[in-house]
Amino acid sequence: MFSEKRLGEFLDELASSAPAPGGGSVAAIAGALGAALVSMVCNLTIGKEKYKDVELDMKALLEQSEALRAELTGLVDADVQAYNKLSAAYKLPKATDEGRKARSAAIQKALIEATDVPFEVARQCTAVMDLCIPGAEKGSTAAISDIGVGALLAEAGLRAAAMNVMINLGTIKDQQFVRRSRRQLKALTKGRSRQKKAVIKVVEGRL
Amino acid sequence: MFSEKRLGEFLDELASSAPAPGGGSVAAIAGALGAALVSMVCNLTIGKEKYKDVELDMKALLEQSEALRAELTGLVDADVQAYNKLSAAYKLPKATDEGRKARSAAIQKALIEATDVPFEVARQCTAVMDLCIPGAEKGSTAAISDIGVGALLAEAGLRAAAMNVMINLGTIKDQQFVRRSRRQLKALTKGRSRQKKAVIKVVEGRL
Repeated sequence: MFSEKRLGEFLDELASSAPAPGGGSVAAIAGALGAALVSMVCNLTIGKEKYKDVELDMKALLEQSEALRAELTGLVDADVQAYNKLSAAYKLPKATDEGRKARSAAIQKALIEATDVPFEVARQCTAVMDLCIPGAEKGSTAAISDIGVGALLAEAGLRAAAMNVMINLGTIKDQQFVRRSRRQLKALTKGRSRQKKAVIKVVEGRL
Repeated sequence: MFSEKRLGEFLDELASSAPAPGGGSVAAIAGALGAALVSMVCNLTIGKEKYKDVELDMKALLEQSEALRAELTGLVDADVQAYNKLSAAYKLPKATDEGRKARSAAIQKALIEATDVPFEVARQCTAVMDLCIPGAEKGSTAAISDIGVGALLAEAGLRAAAMNVMINLGTIKDQQFVRRSRRQLKALTKGRSRQKKAVIKVVEGRL
């Protein structure tokens, strides 16, 4: 499991010629790092006399950021598993017509599953971004830059996940699924550069 | 040491109320992930008959990305150490005039050291970005999206590091150092959004 891996070991595997883990896992890690930074700011604000007026808000924020961190951490493994399934489908026999048909169907099924994972990563990253504005407005100024870094990582995770969705869509034959996915992805990424910049503006204003 | 930490454990520490590791370490990690993805694309290209014309270029690229990965991994620890030094300086006695003077000088010295680390992270992240264009143009199409994700992470690392430099500059009294640093930072970040978009364009053109 990913979270049991040592960081240096994970980076070695990432850099190696093994095709997984790859960019899909990195997208989920970027989101998890972003969520952890939101949690950090909450934890550095909660219990401080100076911030007692926002204590309840920060506790609610923390609950959400920790849930997102857990989900995104799980998605790192889900991405590797989806890749392995797809890889296995490509290895199915293609000597007969029947085999080729079964192989193609298995690949298409695995591709859709392998698209679902980065889609979910993208969704969770936008949810992390949504926590950054209240976090930046209400969090302790002692850790305010950390929420800015959180927004940067969550947005990078979103863009990375979107790129991974797009790659798979190019090889999926179900055009209805492709069209619906493109539409959903567009909605998910819309306005997110602006949102990231808004977080940074709030952070800079409180530095 | 950072690279010996398990990923789940690192995320737990990041999310906790301990002020280090924080956004500074995450900036270095983002850069290291970016460098590892460049290496991955090189490793998936080298030795392939189809890409034998670019074999030497990819080997040279790999050497650079692996050096950057090692440096950025080391900078995660350097950031935590610099934070600890600064934290120790703030804890120096301030009961006497002499004590206050010594404390203030120690803080200023530690702040400059704590600024050097994210500066170095920013520099290394731009170096990772510089590898992404040749990587995207010449790397195996089988891993082309990974170089796109690499550019996204390296740019997020650069912005995150720049934010960490800026925070420290606000509390540094040496105005010559502050002015020089702002100038250097501006030069370092200039044109990097455009560069990231250029990498993504090359990637999308080869998908």
